Amino acid sequence: MTAAEKDYQKILKHSHHARVLIGISHLLDWDQETYMPSSGAAIRAIQLETLAGLIHDQKTGKKFKSLLEKLIDIPTGKIIAEGLPSAKEAALREWRRDYLQEIALPKKFVKEFAKLSSQAVLAWREAKKENSFTKFSPFLEKIIAMSKKKADYIGYKDHPYDALLDHYEPNTTTKEVTAIFSDLKKPIVKLLQNISNAKQVDDHFLHGNFSHDKQLEIAHVILKDMGYSPERGRLDISAHPFSSASHPSDSRITTRFHKTSIISCISVILHEAGHALYEMGLPAEHYGSPLGDAISLGMHESQSRWWETRIGQSKAFWKHYLPLLKEKFKGVFDKIELGAFYKAVNKVEPSYIRVDADEVTYPLHVILRFEIEKALIEGSLKVRDLPDAWNAKMQSLLGITPRNNAEGCLQDIHWAMGGFGYFPTYTLGNIYASQLFEPFAKKHPEWEKRVSEGDLGFINDWLGKTVHQYGKQFTSHEILKLATGKDFSINPYVSYLEEKYKEIYELN
Amino acid sequence: MTAAEKDYQKILKHSHHARVLIGISHLLDWDQETYMPSSGAAIRAIQLETLAGLIHDQKTGKKFKSLLEKLIDIPTGKIIAEGLPSAKEAALREWRRDYLQEIALPKKFVKEFAKLSSQAVLAWREAKKENSFTKFSPFLEKIIAMSKKKADYIGYKDHPYDALLDHYEPNTTTKEVTAIFSDLKKPIVKLLQNISNAKQVDDHFLHGNFSHDKQLEIAHVILKDMGYSPERGRLDISAHPFSSASHPSDSRITTRFHKTSIISCISVILHEAGHALYEMGLPAEHYGSPLGDAISLGMHESQSRWWETRIGQSKAFWKHYLPLLKEKFKGVFDKIELGAFYKAVNKVEPSYIRVDADEVTYPLHVILRFEIEKALIEGSLKVRDLPDAWNAKMQSLLGITPRNNAEGCLQDIHWAMGGFGYFPTYTLGNIYASQLFEPFAKKHPEWEKRVSEGDLGFINDWLGKTVHQYGKQFTSHEILKLATGKDFSINPYVSYLEEKYKEIYELN
Repeated sequence: MTAAEKDYQKILKHSHHARVLIGISHLLDWDQETYMPSSGAAIRAIQLETLAGLIHDQKTGKKFKSLLEKLIDIPTGKIIAEGLPSAKEAALREWRRDYLQEIALPKKFVKEFAKLSSQAVLAWREAKKENSFTKFSPFLEKIIAMSKKKADYIGYKDHPYDALLDHYEPNTTTKEVTAIFSDLKKPIVKLLQNISNAKQVDDHFLHGNFSHDKQLEIAHVILKDMGYSPERGRLDISAHPFSSASHPSDSRITTRFHKTSIISCISVILHEAGHALYEMGLPAEHYGSPLGDAISLGMHESQSRWWETRIGQSKAFWKHYLPLLKEKFKGVFDKIELGAFYKAVNKVEPSYIRVDADEVTYPLHVILRFEIEKALIEGSLKVRDLPDAWNAKMQSLLGITPRNNAEGCLQDIHWAMGGFGYFPTYTLGNIYASQLFEPFAKKHPEWEKRVSEGDLGFINDWLGKTVHQYGKQFTSHEILKLATGKDFSINPYVSYLEEKYKEIYELN
Repeated sequence: MTAAEKDYQKILKHSHHARVLIGISHLLDWDQETYMPSSGAAIRAIQLETLAGLIHDQKTGKKFKSLLEKLIDIPTGKIIAEGLPSAKEAALREWRRDYLQEIALPKKFVKEFAKLSSQAVLAWREAKKENSFTKFSPFLEKIIAMSKKKADYIGYKDHPYDALLDHYEPNTTTKEVTAIFSDLKKPIVKLLQNISNAKQVDDHFLHGNFSHDKQLEIAHVILKDMGYSPERGRLDISAHPFSSASHPSDSRITTRFHKTSIISCISVILHEAGHALYEMGLPAEHYGSPLGDAISLGMHESQSRWWETRIGQSKAFWKHYLPLLKEKFKGVFDKIELGAFYKAVNKVEPSYIRVDADEVTYPLHVILRFEIEKALIEGSLKVRDLPDAWNAKMQSLLGITPRNNAEGCLQDIHWAMGGFGYFPTYTLGNIYASQLFEPFAKKHPEWEKRVSEGDLGFINDWLGKTVHQYGKQFTSHEILKLATGKDFSINPYVSYLEEKYKEIYELN
């Protein structure tokens, strides 16, 4: 073993310790949302805070720094270690990046921000329930002020929003996202207008009173077909669905039941299992190093949206699973043919709530939020003007105006949590997924046939080989380049939407 | 605030941190036995080991020592702090005791022992399954050798077993337990002989095919009546029932279903909720100090056995809950009268397996184990002679001989886990419970009437005031003295068994 390799192993051991603690935190979060008795909330907050402190200390301590700076020059990022394979050099760069982010924020500031955002979340819940923006706005003002301060601590070249965005989607700038979303907006708004002028599809049969047990039975069939191993995961119920992994060998998901929709739970399962399969596919032998972690929120979302929309909203998928629905809910879908069912599942209709949005309007919800949060951070939009700005943008992008702030600018938890910079990753994920789909379909030209036979495992195998196995060895754009031979582009995403909905809505 | 009080608060803060980590460990253990996917076992072991290391460091670090020795002289245990209330002085003594135990064992030894016992548990499982003592005996020999070494590290006055016993039941010596069990053996063996000569009671109606859902419904009714709050706890299913608390506000239990018995699940619920209510009753304001922890395993067991046997096997209890059983399992118990049901629930019959034993034979199982493990530790019994010694003792105490080692000396996990010194606490718990029952019955002479009306909450209130609220402020024997005005004695336990079973078996 070379000296550099030995030093690398030392960093890995140190970093592994922090990663184990992060995994424990994830389990505590999972328990909080699934099984924790209500009175356990106060001690749970203390448990999570304690772990967060230990993780921060581990990641910023002198020992870690002295190990790291033997192999990489921390101020410049120049690799000092000689003879390490390129994957390990990439790991060093990621460790340095993480270290600089961790030390940028004073501990006191981190604690204050955590306290403020926990208060803001409580205020937001009340404000949303009572449909009162003024109950939330003072907190939002403070959150924005602290987010700007956070950006200053972290540092940025062009725009304070860069520093916030980079936390969720590394190596992506405000300028880039502005351009991407600007390019995306035009064709999607146009597509939506064409759809609005076309004959609406009928989806009334997707709504009814569907047994929760039977929905779960279907969910387990789909999970098994996807290759989601019950030995390495589990499915539970929670108010807000999520996926949570503490290790590739323990990657769990939750779902919920919609009051009337039969599709909601299936979409959620596909989405969350997409996230969970990414975590299961990360190389366990690199656990604790950046080579064992997912690339970014955007790449994570590419996996979940891939399964939810590209597979779960395809005709091939329903060719196989509509018969299962017919079998489970005897009599209910007897008269429904595949073509009509497929159209119903893909019904497009502007609506107020992002999480209920269809595939075409979803990116418009995200673009709206990005434009607003960018303006809030740069100061060109004042908090008091947020509801009006929101409603005006809803009208211009989606052609509808929320009846109140609860279904408008108060609907999401993200800003209350201090998560400025998070929203763009949702749509970047869709774009990544579409770009990745091209080499996938090339490699597997028979994919629709296989999916229509309930064969889904090969899809996960392909994603594993193309994305999961690398951890953070490559950036999002590098992964796209490796898989497609091309640079990042929105074209596959736009073409996919245009072609798919042209057929469904019989557009010219 | 005095200087001593300020220093006390500093220790508390430090100790609170370790206590939070212990609570997290308990949650991880709980998850491991309830919901963890099977492949998560390996990373879970690493998570628990990581936490154990952090807890050990926190409890043995220089900082803790320097804080502690300001208030109490560590070598002698003399209180230095002036003007602290006696409860806090008791806390200092317990912190010192804990500190001395923690530093007694070299970290290397602790790791080796943990590794050995985890291997021994695997070997024991195999050995039990294959009924092969020789598959386990080499591990048992090593476990005994390390347990002796552990005793040497900790130190003892009279007998190496003292050091091991003291870990589970502080302030109790081998000599004392030997005398207690010797005194107990005679009247219980005699009682068992008298019962064997009497007409056996009929319990065939307790066995059948009982719906798990209905068993759970009954369990939840009983838990509610006991005062077990669903906001601060929950009930799950696991292979081996247990209770697990990370804080008084989060104290969970599990149960299992017997193949045929309707009583098994109810007994388990009462037993585990007895443990859980003790944890819920500990003063949250002292969380992190010994004043917020339970006294000992024996006192813990007094709470579980109190509920399981003193309440759950009383006629008053079944006067209320037999009608519930009749209602839930329509037709099944229609012809069964309270008297016959009460007798059936209390049927005494020597059997091989401790965990299935009735109230009269249970202590004999424990005495057998104590005598054997004491002999193994002092070296007067060799491992190779263990099966014969076990079988001979079973014959002399219970009048039966196991047909094989799986239902004999291989039945329990305790020795494989390295838990020498644990067994006596089961029977000490029964003795404590009986002694405490006397002042309880004096304070509540109408207890049977109230229980027969499904009123159980006052029992937990009494236990809370008498035991739970004090944490470790007093020792087991001090609690007994406070509650009864008398010293520790086995007489209430023996009298209770003799009187109860005299009536049930119509003995002279």
